[in-house]
Amino acid sequence: MSDRTTIGVGMVGYAFMGRVHSQAWRSVGAFFDLPLAPRMAVLAGRSKERTEAAAAQLGWDAVETDWRELVRRDDVQIVDICTPGDSHAEIAVAALEAGKHVLCEKPLANTVAEAEAMVRAAAAAPGKSMVAFNYRRVPAVALARRYVEEGRLGEIRHVRAQYLQDWIVDPEFPLVWRLQKDKAGAGALGDIGSHIVDAAQFITGQNVVGVSALTETFIKERPLAAESAGLGATGTSATGQVTVDDAALFIGRLSGGAVASFEATRFATGRKNAMRIEINGSRGSLAFDFEAMNELWFSAGGGGFERVLVTEPDHPYVGAWWPPGHGLGYEHTFTHEVKDFLEAIATGADPTPSFADGLRVQRVLAAVERSAAEGSRYTNVED
Amino acid sequence: MSDRTTIGVGMVGYAFMGRVHSQAWRSVGAFFDLPLAPRMAVLAGRSKERTEAAAAQLGWDAVETDWRELVRRDDVQIVDICTPGDSHAEIAVAALEAGKHVLCEKPLANTVAEAEAMVRAAAAAPGKSMVAFNYRRVPAVALARRYVEEGRLGEIRHVRAQYLQDWIVDPEFPLVWRLQKDKAGAGALGDIGSHIVDAAQFITGQNVVGVSALTETFIKERPLAAESAGLGATGTSATGQVTVDDAALFIGRLSGGAVASFEATRFATGRKNAMRIEINGSRGSLAFDFEAMNELWFSAGGGGFERVLVTEPDHPYVGAWWPPGHGLGYEHTFTHEVKDFLEAIATGADPTPSFADGLRVQRVLAAVERSAAEGSRYTNVED
Amino acid sequence: MSDRTTIGVGMVGYAFMGRVHSQAWRSVGAFFDLPLAPRMAVLAGRSKERTEAAAAQLGWDAVETDWRELVRRDDVQIVDICTPGDSHAEIAVAALEAGKHVLCEKPLANTVAEAEAMVRAAAAAPGKSMVAFNYRRVPAVALARRYVEEGRLGEIRHVRAQYLQDWIVDPEFPLVWRLQKDKAGAGALGDIGSHIVDAAQFITGQNVVGVSALTETFIKERPLAAESAGLGATGTSATGQVTVDDAALFIGRLSGGAVASFEATRFATGRKNAMRIEINGSRGSLAFDFEAMNELWFSAGGGGFERVLVTEPDHPYVGAWWPPGHGLGYEHTFTHEVKDFLEAIATGADPTPSFADGLRVQRVLAAVERSAAEGSRYTNVED
Amino acid sequence: MSDRTTIGVGMVGYAFMGRVHSQAWRSVGAFFDLPLAPRMAVLAGRSKERTEAAAAQLGWDAVETDWRELVRRDDVQIVDICTPGDSHAEIAVAALEAGKHVLCEKPLANTVAEAEAMVRAAAAAPGKSMVAFNYRRVPAVALARRYVEEGRLGEIRHVRAQYLQDWIVDPEFPLVWRLQKDKAGAGALGDIGSHIVDAAQFITGQNVVGVSALTETFIKERPLAAESAGLGATGTSATGQVTVDDAALFIGRLSGGAVASFEATRFATGRKNAMRIEINGSRGSLAFDFEAMNELWFSAGGGGFERVLVTEPDHPYVGAWWPPGHGLGYEHTFTHEVKDFLEAIATGADPTPSFADGLRVQRVLAAVERSAAEGSRYTNVED
Repeated sequence: MSDRTTIGVGMVGYAFMGRVHSQAWRSVGAFFDLPLAPRMAVLAGRSKERTEAAAAQLGWDAVETDWRELVRRDDVQIVDICTPGDSHAEIAVAALEAGKHVLCEKPLANTVAEAEAMVRAAAAAPGKSMVAFNYRRVPAVALARRYVEEGRLGEIRHVRAQYLQDWIVDPEFPLVWRLQKDKAGAGALGDIGSHIVDAAQFITGQNVVGVSALTETFIKERPLAAESAGLGATGTSATGQVTVDDAALFIGRLSGGAVASFEATRFATGRKNAMRIEINGSRGSLAFDFEAMNELWFSAGGGGFERVLVTEPDHPYVGAWWPPGHGLGYEHTFTHEVKDFLEAIATGADPTPSFADGLRVQRVLAAVERSAAEGSRYTNVED
Repeated sequence: MSDRTTIGVGMVGYAFMGRVHSQAWRSVGAFFDLPLAPRMAVLAGRSKERTEAAAAQLGWDAVETDWRELVRRDDVQIVDICTPGDSHAEIAVAALEAGKHVLCEKPLANTVAEAEAMVRAAAAAPGKSMVAFNYRRVPAVALARRYVEEGRLGEIRHVRAQYLQDWIVDPEFPLVWRLQKDKAGAGALGDIGSHIVDAAQFITGQNVVGVSALTETFIKERPLAAESAGLGATGTSATGQVTVDDAALFIGRLSGGAVASFEATRFATGRKNAMRIEINGSRGSLAFDFEAMNELWFSAGGGGFERVLVTEPDHPYVGAWWPPGHGLGYEHTFTHEVKDFLEAIATGADPTPSFADGLRVQRVLAAVERSAAEGSRYTNVED
Repeated sequence: MSDRTTIGVGMVGYAFMGRVHSQAWRSVGAFFDLPLAPRMAVLAGRSKERTEAAAAQLGWDAVETDWRELVRRDDVQIVDICTPGDSHAEIAVAALEAGKHVLCEKPLANTVAEAEAMVRAAAAAPGKSMVAFNYRRVPAVALARRYVEEGRLGEIRHVRAQYLQDWIVDPEFPLVWRLQKDKAGAGALGDIGSHIVDAAQFITGQNVVGVSALTETFIKERPLAAESAGLGATGTSATGQVTVDDAALFIGRLSGGAVASFEATRFATGRKNAMRIEINGSRGSLAFDFEAMNELWFSAGGGGFERVLVTEPDHPYVGAWWPPGHGLGYEHTFTHEVKDFLEAIATGADPTPSFADGLRVQRVLAAVERSAAEGSRYTNVED
Repeated sequence: MSDRTTIGVGMVGYAFMGRVHSQAWRSVGAFFDLPLAPRMAVLAGRSKERTEAAAAQLGWDAVETDWRELVRRDDVQIVDICTPGDSHAEIAVAALEAGKHVLCEKPLANTVAEAEAMVRAAAAAPGKSMVAFNYRRVPAVALARRYVEEGRLGEIRHVRAQYLQDWIVDPEFPLVWRLQKDKAGAGALGDIGSHIVDAAQFITGQNVVGVSALTETFIKERPLAAESAGLGATGTSATGQVTVDDAALFIGRLSGGAVASFEATRFATGRKNAMRIEINGSRGSLAFDFEAMNELWFSAGGGGFERVLVTEPDHPYVGAWWPPGHGLGYEHTFTHEVKDFLEAIATGADPTPSFADGLRVQRVLAAVERSAAEGSRYTNVED
């Protein structure tokens, strides 16, 4: 690959999402025949020392301690935003205005207003933009979409989506940033509920048009995390208020006439990352659970469901990898994401999910919150 | 077994429910050491010819063509009501007033008012009464209840219940009585939604206190059934209106603080009788699907769920049957039901689920219908 | 049903097999439209008191304490043999010679010689005879057979069959009759290995033609059972030798060119009644596990296996029972067995599995034992 | 990481195994805190053009067209052998004699004699050596080993291992090198049977001491592959003989008293990479299937098996990756392998599986072939 086709990537943030994005940038070229070779140019983080250590481990060539510097650099053409939601809008808008392409972690923003600003910036800028709903690139989820497009489900009647985790069941689990509304925007609803709303809309090709919702915070007070409390590891008895939902349940309607139920929770003891979706149509049905991510279950009616092992060469993304039966893992959804993003940049196509798709999800979440606040009444999602 | 301990049973109706109740009465004495030996005394149905044929096949000693005659007979101490919901109240009240014990199919009645009348009659009468929510007697469901009682789940956080069938997905399926509000009372909501509401309340020991609901009728017009149309098998192009729900979705709250989601549908292509319930508590979780009725899944947190094969001698009801690993079927839930009913009659205990339990379910269904009619707003279940 | 079509049944033995056979005779007429109505005429057992109690509970009209009396009775046309294997031959031959029809529990006999005598008696007698390999009448197993017959598997390449139980893992489990060669004939091999050999031959339509085998007795000495020791419940420290295999493993070839592996054990901790068979053909594959007896897994190649819920009306035997998704249990395999036996008697057809089929299985077991005794060398099954 | 701790890797071969090894070398440092940083120094292949293209795609700094040159290079301290089995011995011995560390793909060699030579070379050389039985580093398999070591299974009674694939079911599939004895050494037996023998020995900590075996070649003649026939893509009607087994079945005994069954086949239609192992002990049992590689099933007796989702931080290797429920894929087994190899090199420990372990597997395969050739008689594995 000649230098001419190299494209520089600058990533902001190096926690969980930063680690997995790094692995995607590092690996993608070895498996996909790319029009553009990504160069892992710059990593930005607030602490110089920690950012340098992360860059060394994750394979970034340089560091910045201010994301604004990263955005200004000439060796960066793609800005990859892996920070908490409260900084997405500011970084993304600045990067787009600086002519960069932007890949932004989900949810797109913490508020509809921020998301709208991002969509406007994306529309006005020359760069491409994409929101990182990575579950669209699970081969089984992409295959589900294909089945719907091929008409194998017929008319969609039901969507039944859950995202179940259990990592804060313990009341002693501390008040981390994801439990604080000012940083995270929302709780389970925004963090994982956003994924199932996006997946439902992606697979069915229909929008959620209205919802009726309940939210709940089971544990309302939690110990301050050591960092927040400004204290050492010896701990403290200080507690703080959980300002986001622990669980969100909503039912609603899709633009094509289906009814849907959604549930996002961090209190499903024993469920670790059960992002599950079942879709029933007039001709067939689908079921998926991320805890068995290489399987898609399909029924054409009759007496059964077929467990499709989504490792065949003609399944989405799979041909680039291993022989049948040699499954993929969580990280590969990100490898597929950056592969598609690079291709869109090279060909000038509009990548999906777009910022507009991210805004659409945001508006569903906002409708959920309004419905929950107003006695669960049915609430239309704004256009 | 001496005559002294024989008790006569009269059953009204001999369709699906009548067939399975007959098998229960016929079999129960061979497996359980009963204080009272049931005698299959009388079967009532409207057509003499068909009732006699059914009695011969199902093993009933005599027939009546008017249920009122059955209720009056001295050789009948138990009246077993296996008719559609619109006649439950009348038969049950008459039977109770005649001093009989009454086992009544679910849902208890088509309206709350009817169900209230039945509860009043049950309270005033000497006979015992029970509503036939048979899924309580699936060994795995009874074991789930035991686990909750033992505290193995801790504080209940989530209930997630679905009852999924697909028998009317085809728009050409005719307008049978179950699709007509005057006969069936409700659609999927009453027929199968009632089972998951009862199961949720039974297993958790908590009541549903409020709901927010959507209902939907996907196919609003269907061919008249040959019988309804007064026509022969050659068919007709006449159609009629479906006056019940095809699907009902509701979310709500339980008396102990849990949140819950429920879904009942006859449009889940490929799901045949998927009565599923998952419960998450602060210490553990449970999952059950009737399509694999001999299995209960339990998690104590950690990394996994245990598939408990509910065929061990110390599991509920199982000791009476076969060695471990030799599963039971649908019919045995009814055998367990009549066994418990006979024991309650013999000991003077109040059998469960009582008519009051049936009324409680009815009130949840009524709240669902009110909520669905009023923009899904959160609706309290009446006490 | 008129008296003219009644047929009297006499059953010998009332333990586990006797209880489930009784349930089959009691129930079959309520579900299947039979040409002959079975009458539960006589039960034979050695102890008068216990036989009378069993007859009262299980619903038999009369008792005998000598099976020879039962065989002589005019009100008995069918003799149903539910005793340990060491008495099968004697009873069956006597019954056949007395002009009765004979249903005999499996394995057909404890030795090939006995089985041969039974086959000769069956050929010479007017009565019909059948060996009770009940697993053939699991609807999923019968459906598997149908799939093979329809060519959906193509040419059979592999059979992989296991029968896994765990009821004697504990070395303190006593030396019951099933662990004594003189009574049981063999251990896991005869008791459960016989089932998987029969199922493999039945489903594929091919015979096992040669085997190479290992057998093992893990626990060679066990406490005497209270009965055997002639002692009360206070127990004893006396032990006796286990004279049968705890486990048998064999590989072999089928008449149509497939290779096969078989394993029968009572030491598979956690497996309760895992009678499993997987068959791979050039066009498709099947998998079954009795612990989930209402499911058959089928693959037509491609990426997956379909879980067929074998509860559809067009599945074998299922139409007589309940709506889709309402599963059957262990006992129903026997109900199907007696239904088919009664039909064969009425129509004059030869029921299957015949005594010759039982002998064929016996010869495979004998080849297994010879091979195991002679250094596992490949041993042809005698014709 | 300073230069001082860098270690140069030279890899021979860039097909399937070369691709996945490359991904391991590329990724390992980003996830594990390594004592030595691998540098992807040199790739060797026969065709300069194709090797250069592979090096560019897979990220190797230089190329050689003769593996002997690679072995001689000063910038190579580790030689990673990813070629077919017929060249393993020559390359490995040369590399060891040149003072390199050697990681060699499995099976260790095509013959016992070659494997013995490799073991001798490994013993005599200063470098470390390891055979790449990667399935040992599936977290679930490593966890299985831990469970056995902790005594959770008690005394091992049964091993039941299968490796099922279906990629040559079609008789038109060409005669690739894996179907030719001179290149591949053996068929399913060597390629995948070796994995289950190693896994069984690894998990149980016991050796296979004797076997009785059958092998079969279902399709004895196949079209020549275009390459072999020296023809273009237009094909040819020429065929050649399949000189290896399509399937191998064997039963045997382990050093600790367990009995075992093994089956390796490429004719299990619908099974893609079903490397399955079930182990039954006196206290507990385990089951694993690579098609669901993030799950380990465990039973402590009782009524059930727990599906352990092997994604918890305290599970082997898992802490380096993602949060619970975010599964790994096939490639990560290799990442774990090179991580352990690098650690062994740095600390001076002997890595496992050693060449001696590889030889041990080879001797089992040889015993299988001898047994199959001699009427399946029980054949001791040589020490």
